Amino acid sequence: MISAGTTLRTMRERKPLVHQITNYVVMNETANATLAIGALPVMAHAREEVEEMVQIASALVINIGTLSERWIESMLLAGKAASARPIPVVLDPVGVGATAYRTDTARRILDEVDVTVLRGNAGEVATLVGAAAEVRGVESMSTGMEPAELARAAARSLGVIASVTGPVDHVSDGDRVLAVSNGDPLLATVTGTGCMSSALTGCFLAAKPEEPLEAAAEALAAFGVAAEDAATGAAGPGTFHARLYDALYALDPATLGERTRIEEL
Amino acid sequence: MISAGTTLRTMRERKPLVHQITNYVVMNETANATLAIGALPVMAHAREEVEEMVQIASALVINIGTLSERWIESMLLAGKAASARPIPVVLDPVGVGATAYRTDTARRILDEVDVTVLRGNAGEVATLVGAAAEVRGVESMSTGMEPAELARAAARSLGVIASVTGPVDHVSDGDRVLAVSNGDPLLATVTGTGCMSSALTGCFLAAKPEEPLEAAAEALAAFGVAAEDAATGAAGPGTFHARLYDALYALDPATLGERTRIEEL
Amino acid sequence: MISAGTTLRTMRERKPLVHQITNYVVMNETANATLAIGALPVMAHAREEVEEMVQIASALVINIGTLSERWIESMLLAGKAASARPIPVVLDPVGVGATAYRTDTARRILDEVDVTVLRGNAGEVATLVGAAAEVRGVESMSTGMEPAELARAAARSLGVIASVTGPVDHVSDGDRVLAVSNGDPLLATVTGTGCMSSALTGCFLAAKPEEPLEAAAEALAAFGVAAEDAATGAAGPGTFHARLYDALYALDPATLGERTRIEEL
Repeated sequence: MISAGTTLRTMRERKPLVHQITNYVVMNETANATLAIGALPVMAHAREEVEEMVQIASALVINIGTLSERWIESMLLAGKAASARPIPVVLDPVGVGATAYRTDTARRILDEVDVTVLRGNAGEVATLVGAAAEVRGVESMSTGMEPAELARAAARSLGVIASVTGPVDHVSDGDRVLAVSNGDPLLATVTGTGCMSSALTGCFLAAKPEEPLEAAAEALAAFGVAAEDAATGAAGPGTFHARLYDALYALDPATLGERTRIEEL
Repeated sequence: MISAGTTLRTMRERKPLVHQITNYVVMNETANATLAIGALPVMAHAREEVEEMVQIASALVINIGTLSERWIESMLLAGKAASARPIPVVLDPVGVGATAYRTDTARRILDEVDVTVLRGNAGEVATLVGAAAEVRGVESMSTGMEPAELARAAARSLGVIASVTGPVDHVSDGDRVLAVSNGDPLLATVTGTGCMSSALTGCFLAAKPEEPLEAAAEALAAFGVAAEDAATGAAGPGTFHARLYDALYALDPATLGERTRIEEL
Repeated sequence: MISAGTTLRTMRERKPLVHQITNYVVMNETANATLAIGALPVMAHAREEVEEMVQIASALVINIGTLSERWIESMLLAGKAASARPIPVVLDPVGVGATAYRTDTARRILDEVDVTVLRGNAGEVATLVGAAAEVRGVESMSTGMEPAELARAAARSLGVIASVTGPVDHVSDGDRVLAVSNGDPLLATVTGTGCMSSALTGCFLAAKPEEPLEAAAEALAAFGVAAEDAATGAAGPGTFHARLYDALYALDPATLGERTRIEEL
């Protein structure tokens, strides 16, 4: 059942630990988004400790935004440990389609780890399902599929919940498709807001692991509501960015449900 | 003698270089806190250069928040070079107690380096003295000792100034205990504020190396006063975070002493 | 021809991809500055992918602020690939003069890569031309040459456009010298503003590769104008920092030219 407010309330009561192996660019930002929404972030990437850290975590977020060999090794170790427990795993395939290294790494993680939610932009997800896509660095420029169909196709072919973000977000388990239309254009002017949405997806999954489709959509809707609040009074990307943490922190479980715009297609 | 204003004035005159080997999550934040208070930060972690950088630094801050093998090697090299000069060394044992890798690394640094101040939360410090502690990721959940006693015991058993931060901070040289009650609850909503307090401890030690107990307490008090100022008018964690640098920069040596709440227990 | 407004308009139309191999401290900040001004950043440092990423980029920015062996290897691979295409390359020699490792690395990159613009502070650039210089960590304390002469000498001896930033910036191709006097003292209170100016230099070069001297000066002038706007109403380094992205985003191509203060000496 979709109820972002209930999931948020549960998360704030439990304060789940969300283990993140993410890129250098956004570590501070995803940790702060995690804290602001009400969960606890931990960043750990050494192969010597990732499996142990996974044992005390309630969700794992893997983000391939700045890759190198040792980090990939740790992502796989952590991902397998998470699959074994099991706890939910979010994969953010940053920049897939821009280089073979990123595409190959994302595929390898999807093969070897039981990924719960794949959260990416349309170009990244289209690349992973073998559809036409143009990815410029970490930006999706165009794809050959409608996003709702892309989400459904990705979920089916990759065996995940596919969470495709854009002006409207589409989340699918391969059967159902939920469209989320919260958000603000200023999100696209700040680096790492996609990565933040993946981190928040991990937080919501930790609070409602039994309904990952709903949890993934609720996370995007909650983030979008916060973005709407942050945009009010922001003078541009910098003040919007600061206000985004204020808004995540101020999200009210009692009213969140009325404000989310999640529609089943 | 406790005189945070005098130490701050001295620091701003000398602009000491504070070498920081810290975690990926907070590098920007600790560098900005260091600049804002009036010292100069430098981040360098390559084993090829850390010993040379230590030669021009006035303090070294080692923070184990995101570890890996090469970084540990550099932390030890830099720490030994700092001990040899000597310049003050601050160790921030981020996440000790959460994984064996972190706990072992912190112990190894304490063994091989002449650590001046150990700055951590109660769970981290309790783990290092062998007391009961629950650490969840990088958060201290509970310990079996009162913080004042924990600080004293840690100082004695580890041969350091122990600086245990929390709602009230406790700093001890094993004999005396100073309690610092400046601060604001919003500090806990922003990642890396503990790491910032370690960086600022390095700045204050660089200005008053001959009285490390007092310098460590003054650093926490100054940071707490800045947090109080930043909280006034902040709308949540994001605007508080931005205002925290404003407040550090605006700290007035002439009035700081009256505003600090440092009590000898 | 100097026309910052035209270059800015062109950049926003083309949205060039600017590949950055930069330091851990400022990755988020330079990515956000790049997005705010209207270009697309991508951070990628793995030797497995840097050459491929360079193929879709319109400029490469190499920043040595936090070095290690593998990163140097990738900087050289990416730089050579950029020289081969060719696309403009910016080198930011952070901390050159502070350690031999940094100085040697910068020299090696200058030797092996066709660097278009060298963007550094006076101490860093003076070190690279063999002039007297004092560098404290990453800060320039003093040099033995006037900055205009330093820029000209560096351009001649190193075969680059030398972009020497300070209270007034000086950009030279070895013959002409352009002085840029936009900016605000608050820039010196935020870490990474020099690195941001290098990133923005890459953005402007991508939009006007045929006139690198002018593009480099325009980038500094545009950044300086944004800093002037951000300083208005800022309460200190933190709010200035947030407002700096707002101001970059709000720069108006129609009025930018009137506001830039670029003078040929």
